[in-house]
Amino acid sequence: MDIRTIKDPSFLKSLSVQELETLSHDIRQFLIETCSVTGGHIGANLGVVELTIALHKHYQSPIDKIIWDVGHQSYIHKILTGRANQFDTLRQYKGLCGFPKLRESEHDVWEAGHSSTSLSAAMGMAKARDILGHSNHIVPIIGDGALTGGMALEALNSIGHDRTNMTIILNDNEMSIAPNVGAMHNMLGRIRMNQGYNRLKVDAETVLSRLPGGSRLRESADRLKDSLKYLVVDGAFFEELGIRYIGPVDGHNYEELEHALKTADSIDKPVLIHVVTKKGKGYHPAENDKIGTWHGLGPYKLDTGEQIKGQPKGPSWSQLMSDEILSYAREDERVVAITPAMPVGSKLTKFQSELPEQFFDVGIAEQHAVTMAAGLAMEGMRPYVAIYSTFLQRAYDQVLHDVDRQKLNVIFGIDRSGLVGADGETHQGVFDIGFLTQFPNMVVMMPKDENEAKDMVYTAMEYQDGPIAIRYPRGNGLGVEIQDERNALPIGRWEKLSNGTDVALIAYGPTVETIKQVAASLEANNINATVINARYIKPMDTEMLHELGNANIPIVTVEENMLNGGLGSQVSNFLTDHAYRNKLKRLGIDDIYIEHGDVDRILQDIGLDATSIEQSVKTLLK
Amino acid sequence: MDIRTIKDPSFLKSLSVQELETLSHDIRQFLIETCSVTGGHIGANLGVVELTIALHKHYQSPIDKIIWDVGHQSYIHKILTGRANQFDTLRQYKGLCGFPKLRESEHDVWEAGHSSTSLSAAMGMAKARDILGHSNHIVPIIGDGALTGGMALEALNSIGHDRTNMTIILNDNEMSIAPNVGAMHNMLGRIRMNQGYNRLKVDAETVLSRLPGGSRLRESADRLKDSLKYLVVDGAFFEELGIRYIGPVDGHNYEELEHALKTADSIDKPVLIHVVTKKGKGYHPAENDKIGTWHGLGPYKLDTGEQIKGQPKGPSWSQLMSDEILSYAREDERVVAITPAMPVGSKLTKFQSELPEQFFDVGIAEQHAVTMAAGLAMEGMRPYVAIYSTFLQRAYDQVLHDVDRQKLNVIFGIDRSGLVGADGETHQGVFDIGFLTQFPNMVVMMPKDENEAKDMVYTAMEYQDGPIAIRYPRGNGLGVEIQDERNALPIGRWEKLSNGTDVALIAYGPTVETIKQVAASLEANNINATVINARYIKPMDTEMLHELGNANIPIVTVEENMLNGGLGSQVSNFLTDHAYRNKLKRLGIDDIYIEHGDVDRILQDIGLDATSIEQSVKTLLK
Repeated sequence: MDIRTIKDPSFLKSLSVQELETLSHDIRQFLIETCSVTGGHIGANLGVVELTIALHKHYQSPIDKIIWDVGHQSYIHKILTGRANQFDTLRQYKGLCGFPKLRESEHDVWEAGHSSTSLSAAMGMAKARDILGHSNHIVPIIGDGALTGGMALEALNSIGHDRTNMTIILNDNEMSIAPNVGAMHNMLGRIRMNQGYNRLKVDAETVLSRLPGGSRLRESADRLKDSLKYLVVDGAFFEELGIRYIGPVDGHNYEELEHALKTADSIDKPVLIHVVTKKGKGYHPAENDKIGTWHGLGPYKLDTGEQIKGQPKGPSWSQLMSDEILSYAREDERVVAITPAMPVGSKLTKFQSELPEQFFDVGIAEQHAVTMAAGLAMEGMRPYVAIYSTFLQRAYDQVLHDVDRQKLNVIFGIDRSGLVGADGETHQGVFDIGFLTQFPNMVVMMPKDENEAKDMVYTAMEYQDGPIAIRYPRGNGLGVEIQDERNALPIGRWEKLSNGTDVALIAYGPTVETIKQVAASLEANNINATVINARYIKPMDTEMLHELGNANIPIVTVEENMLNGGLGSQVSNFLTDHAYRNKLKRLGIDDIYIEHGDVDRILQDIGLDATSIEQSVKTLLK
Repeated sequence: MDIRTIKDPSFLKSLSVQELETLSHDIRQFLIETCSVTGGHIGANLGVVELTIALHKHYQSPIDKIIWDVGHQSYIHKILTGRANQFDTLRQYKGLCGFPKLRESEHDVWEAGHSSTSLSAAMGMAKARDILGHSNHIVPIIGDGALTGGMALEALNSIGHDRTNMTIILNDNEMSIAPNVGAMHNMLGRIRMNQGYNRLKVDAETVLSRLPGGSRLRESADRLKDSLKYLVVDGAFFEELGIRYIGPVDGHNYEELEHALKTADSIDKPVLIHVVTKKGKGYHPAENDKIGTWHGLGPYKLDTGEQIKGQPKGPSWSQLMSDEILSYAREDERVVAITPAMPVGSKLTKFQSELPEQFFDVGIAEQHAVTMAAGLAMEGMRPYVAIYSTFLQRAYDQVLHDVDRQKLNVIFGIDRSGLVGADGETHQGVFDIGFLTQFPNMVVMMPKDENEAKDMVYTAMEYQDGPIAIRYPRGNGLGVEIQDERNALPIGRWEKLSNGTDVALIAYGPTVETIKQVAASLEANNINATVINARYIKPMDTEMLHELGNANIPIVTVEENMLNGGLGSQVSNFLTDHAYRNKLKRLGIDDIYIEHGDVDRILQDIGLDATSIEQSVKTLLK
């Protein structure tokens, strides 16, 4: 059928299994083709084609609540709810969001992006249903990786205790982003592999029924039988938490899926259906991916799956940072790297294979990652935590209470700082400066180019006075010539790149390159700018700030970060604290959420491209 | 023996069980007496007397790392490591800390305060040990309540997978702060109650050994036997996670404890010893506490346990807020209350007993609490999350990503905002304004007195445009006459309490009372102050700020909060953004951690008492 003509999921109700299978095939083709142009989370979506169709056939969305954990696997859901014709704009500026979006459809009942939120949301929705006297189904779908996130485990514990009626779909594809780690993952693997488990139930009943009644032996046997639930049920872990386990179910078999969903309907308490799926199913390049390359990616060639990439100017920031850390770790066993499930994204696979003893992928567990680093630092190690800015939010309290308050020498490599583009709203790295600079012992820096990044890693390795954070953006460096030499950057000292008397432009990170352009353009208009690289966002260079204050020069701060709590705010505070009268214009993100789309295009919208900045400078100087 | 003469734990090695029991008795008496004067977390400590002694007898602290989760149960540890003679100063200004403190003793190897951090810290320390080639023991002690915190579960999953060698002590006292909730708690209860479990192992072996060899039945039986580990082991939950379970062990029996610790030593992988203790053991008033009154408290009468309290001026802030919410919940089933394990602390027990269907204690699970509230709000409910400011830090990302970003109508009652006194550094409620005001859709307010608190609850119930937070301090209100009438407070409008032309004083919450005093005192010096109640910390009253800016009046902001990110910072930003030239003095906490002690005394230290504020005003006006 023409996938683009689907308006809503009601047509599924009357389809035969064979028709459903044809539909799966057509949807897969549609996905593989459209994503080859737009890019996207193709692997995860190919894995849940049958599951999504089965859910929409069995339930009545949006009365029944289908809640996607993380949400990047909701493409088929979007197709079935009438959005196939928007897939050409997927993850693009003003286009279809790569995650569920309330305003896109009434069938999107919960937005996510970060993992492990679906079970708590489901419990809230279920309690609302119960209190208001409704009877709809609540169906969170959570991956095996997301299930190990702390808040999902908190929710399981709470749901099991409360016996909240819902049907949890555990989508077990043996892989969240990278191959999964953690004991729960091992446990699920045991269940999948051990076909004998179900036979055991039969075995046990056979044994016990043959024993003579009334005997002491039979007495023992009966007691044994009472406890058999712990033996015959595969999901003892879930059953111990008060959640009824059904599975494992083949996630690509419509009859098995429907049977499991029907069984769940008949049980008036929380049920977990363990569905086994194959990430990338139906497209060989994605199916054969063993490390997570096909998790989220850009355009690719349809026939080979080869990724189509532009010519980047410089090396990937993540790769540059990880290689640099690795060079220290080779020389010093105290240097260890920790990632919460992002060995591929943070480009740590080389570190992992070369120094496995000094490398820890702890799974989706940001809180644990950070406090484990604190424990390592307490014992004299030099832990480096590579973590995306947006996911560091999950470990706010651990950075504050465990690392910063105890003044421990943990190095944070804050990946994907600033705007991230296609992943959008839930993934922007624009809050970390706001909170990190409020922690008393924290040092925060961001490199303007590749060489400064290397200097910052060197500085961090030398630093012995508490935590230090190095932010770096998504994507690739500027392509400057890489120097062999490393220099320590004095803590809290900025770099003045040019001296002008009309205005001072202050920025950090690659935005420094932008204000250099602005300064060049201003010069053509006879406006001479001082250009400052505020490489330390905390502590600030108070000597240089006093100099600016005394000169009473107008100041413009520019940052790809929330205005509130950003560097500009700190500069404002400094000026008023010291009663300086400089004109100040703070440029940044003004208290709004930024959606997905091309970063350059968004920078124009929010006045952070070179042209807009130049205009702001001129307005200030008027 | 004289407890005060203990210098270090080495003397324990040679003591007999009988001598250990005498020591336990003496330590209990010492604790009961000293805490009757100082107050403290007496209940938890009385429960771990034997356990702490057994640990220090068995292990070599500080080479072996004894890591206390939360840390308020470390009094006996402090006594055994030579600090008994400082107990008269417990939790007092410049006195002994109520939690482990690195600078107090080499035996304090990890600081806590917030729960559930010990396992992650232990894994970090254990990996450091392994990499550096040491062989010391790592021994985290975690309560059954703290074990349900998400990060502890993340850590269990990681430790089990990694098979990191350590001995986890699960201190199961059936109560964390309030009686525990959650499925894991139920599970531990089943283990404790079911004495038959161990007999089952014997039963099963008896049954199976009697079956004729070689038969098909015997074949089934052998397969059955292979799986018996899931039947005969009590701690299937932990074993499923790859952690060896030992227990349950009587936590007040030295022989059982020592036997379990020795067994753990012989196992070269992670072991969890399930120790059952009785909170308050040995002191009847504490032992009989069923709801958590004896968790942490002030001075009490030795003979009866009756608490000695001063005459508060007004009602408890927590009680006032909870009663107010209850009054709305009675009329509207959509109003529900959620607490993460603090029904007693947040004074919600009346709500709980009166409207149990609208009340959710989710245990120590702040992340789940907040996102569950988001789920409720998504379905049209009016959830009220009562949460301590310091613990809200654990749910930073949930407030941002799930509530604020989706603009959901969740009301946050932020208890213990500002300085908290005796609990000190880890519990100060001084970071929430910094992060909440950076969230685009959040409204943040704080009442100056009891009536304003009621008006704020009314306002929040009427508000339909996203999340709203009402902060309130620890302790009691001012004692103003309570009005029956409720008024909606226009969003983002401040209250001018007096009009003066020399200086404008701006504060929020009960600090408004302080600046009123300052203004009165200034008036005696012919300085006329405008006094402003900034009841909305976000959004600010821009109209009033423009008025102040245009008047070019000197401004002093005062807040019991971090300066960085506080209201004063926002005022500074506003002034520089609009090129106003007002002199501005921002008073608050200047980028340091504040330790435990009497709040009034601390306010003097940091310049936030009336006298210091007055001095700051005069300095500014010079």
